[in-house]
Amino acid sequence: MKAFTHLRDLGPEGAQEILARAAAWKQKAPGAIFQDKLLAMVFFNPSLRTRASFEAAMLRHGGNAIVLEVGNGTWKLEDREGVVMDGDRAEHIKEAVPVLAQYADALAVRAFSSGLSDAEDERDPILSAFRAHSPAPLISMESAREHPCQGLADLLTVQEAFGTTKVPLTLTWAPHMKPLPKAVPNSFLLTAAACGADITVAAPEGYELTAEVRAEAEAYAKATGGSVRFTTDQAAAVKGAKAICAKAWGPATGSEAAPMASLQPWMPTAAHMELAAKDAIFLHCLPVRRNLEVHDRVLDGPWSRVVQEAGNRFHVQRALLASLLLES
Amino acid sequence: MKAFTHLRDLGPEGAQEILARAAAWKQKAPGAIFQDKLLAMVFFNPSLRTRASFEAAMLRHGGNAIVLEVGNGTWKLEDREGVVMDGDRAEHIKEAVPVLAQYADALAVRAFSSGLSDAEDERDPILSAFRAHSPAPLISMESAREHPCQGLADLLTVQEAFGTTKVPLTLTWAPHMKPLPKAVPNSFLLTAAACGADITVAAPEGYELTAEVRAEAEAYAKATGGSVRFTTDQAAAVKGAKAICAKAWGPATGSEAAPMASLQPWMPTAAHMELAAKDAIFLHCLPVRRNLEVHDRVLDGPWSRVVQEAGNRFHVQRALLASLLLES
Amino acid sequence: MKAFTHLRDLGPEGAQEILARAAAWKQKAPGAIFQDKLLAMVFFNPSLRTRASFEAAMLRHGGNAIVLEVGNGTWKLEDREGVVMDGDRAEHIKEAVPVLAQYADALAVRAFSSGLSDAEDERDPILSAFRAHSPAPLISMESAREHPCQGLADLLTVQEAFGTTKVPLTLTWAPHMKPLPKAVPNSFLLTAAACGADITVAAPEGYELTAEVRAEAEAYAKATGGSVRFTTDQAAAVKGAKAICAKAWGPATGSEAAPMASLQPWMPTAAHMELAAKDAIFLHCLPVRRNLEVHDRVLDGPWSRVVQEAGNRFHVQRALLASLLLES
Repeated sequence: MKAFTHLRDLGPEGAQEILARAAAWKQKAPGAIFQDKLLAMVFFNPSLRTRASFEAAMLRHGGNAIVLEVGNGTWKLEDREGVVMDGDRAEHIKEAVPVLAQYADALAVRAFSSGLSDAEDERDPILSAFRAHSPAPLISMESAREHPCQGLADLLTVQEAFGTTKVPLTLTWAPHMKPLPKAVPNSFLLTAAACGADITVAAPEGYELTAEVRAEAEAYAKATGGSVRFTTDQAAAVKGAKAICAKAWGPATGSEAAPMASLQPWMPTAAHMELAAKDAIFLHCLPVRRNLEVHDRVLDGPWSRVVQEAGNRFHVQRALLASLLLES
Repeated sequence: MKAFTHLRDLGPEGAQEILARAAAWKQKAPGAIFQDKLLAMVFFNPSLRTRASFEAAMLRHGGNAIVLEVGNGTWKLEDREGVVMDGDRAEHIKEAVPVLAQYADALAVRAFSSGLSDAEDERDPILSAFRAHSPAPLISMESAREHPCQGLADLLTVQEAFGTTKVPLTLTWAPHMKPLPKAVPNSFLLTAAACGADITVAAPEGYELTAEVRAEAEAYAKATGGSVRFTTDQAAAVKGAKAICAKAWGPATGSEAAPMASLQPWMPTAAHMELAAKDAIFLHCLPVRRNLEVHDRVLDGPWSRVVQEAGNRFHVQRALLASLLLES
Repeated sequence: MKAFTHLRDLGPEGAQEILARAAAWKQKAPGAIFQDKLLAMVFFNPSLRTRASFEAAMLRHGGNAIVLEVGNGTWKLEDREGVVMDGDRAEHIKEAVPVLAQYADALAVRAFSSGLSDAEDERDPILSAFRAHSPAPLISMESAREHPCQGLADLLTVQEAFGTTKVPLTLTWAPHMKPLPKAVPNSFLLTAAACGADITVAAPEGYELTAEVRAEAEAYAKATGGSVRFTTDQAAAVKGAKAICAKAWGPATGSEAAPMASLQPWMPTAAHMELAAKDAIFLHCLPVRRNLEVHDRVLDGPWSRVVQEAGNRFHVQRALLASLLLES
């Protein structure tokens, strides 16, 4: 694999292979497989889990990682073609990326949505520029469209709980004071569909995921025997689900969505969990704003797998890095 | 040892053991004792010595370290229970700490005093939350109440100068334009008392250390045969001392202290050092504001051990990390 | 070598030795030559190439690096002697540097020009303070006067293109919206002269490099059989050149220079490159502001060696670090 920036780089079969390798290595860790390998990580946005788990994956297996923070210690980067660079972006990705690719064996990049529009997120401008200009293997640490390592960690957690990913899963919208990006819900949906789950997405009117992402998920479901369903009825959606994954995201571009503050009843509480299957688990990518996005009783209750889910970031990323660094 | 965040985690005997190991390994360094070990360091505040010396201790012995800066590259962290997280703190310590503990073998945290009150510092809210939620060994890189690695480095420097820690030591208040935290003077006092020194603390009226810290120091002195004395008479306090340790700190909560600017004569000068013992040494934890907090002639004079004292941070921390990583 | 902060630390012979070793190791990399070695890197200013290439040089050869950013995670540092430190600089270089030298085997520092004056840049205050107070080997990652690793990387790129550095080279001024420092043009001039090139510097009236730097370059040229020429006629300067190196810099202190915005025709375009030798190459230290400083067609055209030039930073720095860490 030369790049892993979107789930389509793996597809359903590739996703299953990564989950299988992640699970096997979680049982019995490999040795110094990243000996003499160097990963250059470029962050346009903050990180806790992503940074620490990628660094740990390299360092624990004989490798090393370099961290650069765009606009904080390193120059702001331009991604647009042909512009006169007289603004605050002192360097173009056309230079920065091939330069870093000379020092490191692979690159990792985090570049959140600009918030301009769903169409802009589909285009994924910064990630696309990295991908176009990197001669080295590239992995996404979340971009405008997807957070593909998160999706894989989520499904590994489902598999650990139920021995299979082919179970009813519900992704529910959650409230927040800010219109957060859709990369995480997109990746949960896409990865669950690619892993053959029966997935229901519940969100208020006006908070729909894009047609492109929904169509991609439906194609995966068709290939894997899973199913994809979209609803605005949260109570119906959580009923009987084996896993409830909650995430806040902003309205669809141009939609007449209700203001987020008015949607407080969408916050998952213990009552929601009691509607789910008896052995249901609760997932969230973290960071989570307690009592705004998810109630304390859910996060501190018996359903929560959020810490284990974050731990699985390490495991799926180790498997992905092996594929990128050792087999590309 | 599962955690080292306050001197009471070691007690007088444990402190002596760490000093003994630090001194022995300073003579003859151990090999790759931290092979396959990863330390995750979390900074709420700036650092030079602490960061570099902890990283060096891990790296020089086959281990690795990850550095996260709260609010600068990673999310701001909430420590309060039960709040609605709608402010600028995007993640709770209840998630962040157990997540990091999955990636690393031990955690280190720096979280200075909030400056709210002495009582709040006694409670040590951020450090306490880290300690409550970390399944991994935890070490303090300075918190609201104590800077325990600094205290041990100070006493190692005393021991190197005089062959024993059981000597007359003076901790003197020094001027500054800001009301600095009391963690460093607290730790000097506690560690000196735990090491059996005869310690005098000189500070202007209204700048007293807390009753809790003074009582703890007195208990250590009783156990070790040392002594603890508090005075507002700086000249008397420095007379005959074997070591003078200077530090600026803020007034006691609620006290009618003189403004710090009016206390400029408290700044240690060569004249102060000449009142001390003939072979007296000068200590300061650094960073030090020259000619505001301590005069150039002291820092550049024959008494100064401040660079060696900072070097000893590496040595005591290596000994502590061995205890936490290899024996916990 | 105890320090490499200015080209004069190497001189013409030393520069040739570093280029020879860099070229040889680029063909056949050495093994774990930096085993057990730790480099402490201190940044007063942002970096991409410098930070990543120095870290890579250490990490790829068994060593390690620590990164500190002054004023961002670590204290602001004072370099002036005898001042009352009541401003925003909490620590003096007189403490910080010897302290770091206890934890690491060598120090690296980046401290750009203050922009005060050419005379202040000649004095190189921060770098000079580091050099005065470091007991450990010291390397410059760019200071007010020079960026000596960049100059060596530039000349290695010339040597790779033509098999020799004794060719006609042109350094041309380029437009920018800010008066950038002169360290990079200074180092290109000095290193080219020390490597025996026939170098022409083209800049608008009022943008002259300092008399001290020009005299030093002329002395090197005399020793190596090269030549140094200064002109305000850009077209004549680029004619027949084997390499054109472009860089923006600010006016000479006190000069009646035309405003930079009025000098837009100085921006190198394809037309400039077509005046040069048929096999001419284009150099720039990066970051480069496209279409302000250099036209897209140059950077994306057949002449550009800017990525290879940045790659050569790694190679010359590996050779320099070997000299500092293994032979000092």
